[in-house]
Amino acid sequence: MPHRYFTTDIGDGQARLWGQDAHHLAHVMRARLGDEVILCDGNATEYTGQITGFEKDCVLFSASPGYPSGAEPSIQVTLFVGYPKQGKLETIVQKAVELGAVSVVPFFSRYCVATPKKEEEKNARYNRVAAEAAGQCGRGILPKVEMPLNLKELPGRLAEFDAAFFCYECGGQPLRQELGQAKKIALITGSEGGFAPEEAQLLQEAGARVIGLGPRILRCETAPTAALAALMTLTGNLE
Amino acid sequence: MPHRYFTTDIGDGQARLWGQDAHHLAHVMRARLGDEVILCDGNATEYTGQITGFEKDCVLFSASPGYPSGAEPSIQVTLFVGYPKQGKLETIVQKAVELGAVSVVPFFSRYCVATPKKEEEKNARYNRVAAEAAGQCGRGILPKVEMPLNLKELPGRLAEFDAAFFCYECGGQPLRQELGQAKKIALITGSEGGFAPEEAQLLQEAGARVIGLGPRILRCETAPTAALAALMTLTGNLE
Repeated sequence: MPHRYFTTDIGDGQARLWGQDAHHLAHVMRARLGDEVILCDGNATEYTGQITGFEKDCVLFSASPGYPSGAEPSIQVTLFVGYPKQGKLETIVQKAVELGAVSVVPFFSRYCVATPKKEEEKNARYNRVAAEAAGQCGRGILPKVEMPLNLKELPGRLAEFDAAFFCYECGGQPLRQELGQAKKIALITGSEGGFAPEEAQLLQEAGARVIGLGPRILRCETAPTAALAALMTLTGNLE
Repeated sequence: MPHRYFTTDIGDGQARLWGQDAHHLAHVMRARLGDEVILCDGNATEYTGQITGFEKDCVLFSASPGYPSGAEPSIQVTLFVGYPKQGKLETIVQKAVELGAVSVVPFFSRYCVATPKKEEEKNARYNRVAAEAAGQCGRGILPKVEMPLNLKELPGRLAEFDAAFFCYECGGQPLRQELGQAKKIALITGSEGGFAPEEAQLLQEAGARVIGLGPRILRCETAPTAALAALMTLTGNLE
């Protein structure tokens, strides 16, 4: 299987790859003239690129006509996730990208153990994790990780979506009953401490539908993966 | 929510908890006479235990009549998983227990990077991880992690199951189409390197049905979690 790289420098049957990716292809993969890779514009269009030259900081390609990426799900899911302890958010981001989320939005809530600290730096790292996962699992877009919000800001965001599903540790309706025909979906899962009752109420008043993930108590890093897998299964995007 | 402990020492309205769990309850949780915990016999029956005494190595309880655990899924899934590198098997075991698997069987295959090393020691650790996860997520049984097999031994094991689903990186049928009414299910996922063509053939000849997990390439530690979540979703056990 040819390697995949994201680049926006594609047009008129030609393409260029810059920076670390160019270095990786030229010096780590030791690619040669004529070798083929898949180039993705990050907007769900892919191209077969054939190497036509190496320059100091870039690799040159002839590019095939673009074709739609086959890897994007038919639903656009944004994962709003309670900010967990330690390095768990990196794992959550990686799995969310593999399972087809378009973006991840961490949030701080009352029972979060994590507190905001060097978040700009961390956000850059989370986005690198997302980009690496996107390349590795073959996504057609580059999912983004937003800067963290406070839970109180979530209601203002939910209007962007056809539906919001709130995975509450106290249980709720089955996702399959609540799903309907929603395409643009907000999925909300908590941090280690879960949600305070008034936070749960706030989310429900903002229109989020409460769903349950079964009688077993899932860890905060398992719940988003399981909920995304459930969403993708029920919409035919995990088959 | 009261804490949960597994013990088989339950009968005639009394129960005892031994060893590390007794130490945890008495000295870490600092429980007192009259405090209540949930006791589980590891066979899907639970009891409310009220502390009646502390002895050197054990805690004594009066136990309520037993009631069935509500946390066990309606299907019994054994996860056969290609032996991954580094500590990934611990993560896989933990997530499999949370998502309701009854046992995990690692196996070595042609493209495994991991090689057998101190497996008895490791197996004891994997079973500790499983037991901790079972207590934490509220399982009614203690899922087991078996000693690793070689992939060639898998066909001999599949007759134990109503159905075997083989998650092949080259794709297959949707799980929802193949699932049927199977209750005792083998789920097979690979290591980092995936499956050699002759291994895939061997599993299919042994009756395993090939299923696909979608166009995105899932990491070896994501695939079992996603496949288990899909199985539990489709059978109403993740809601």
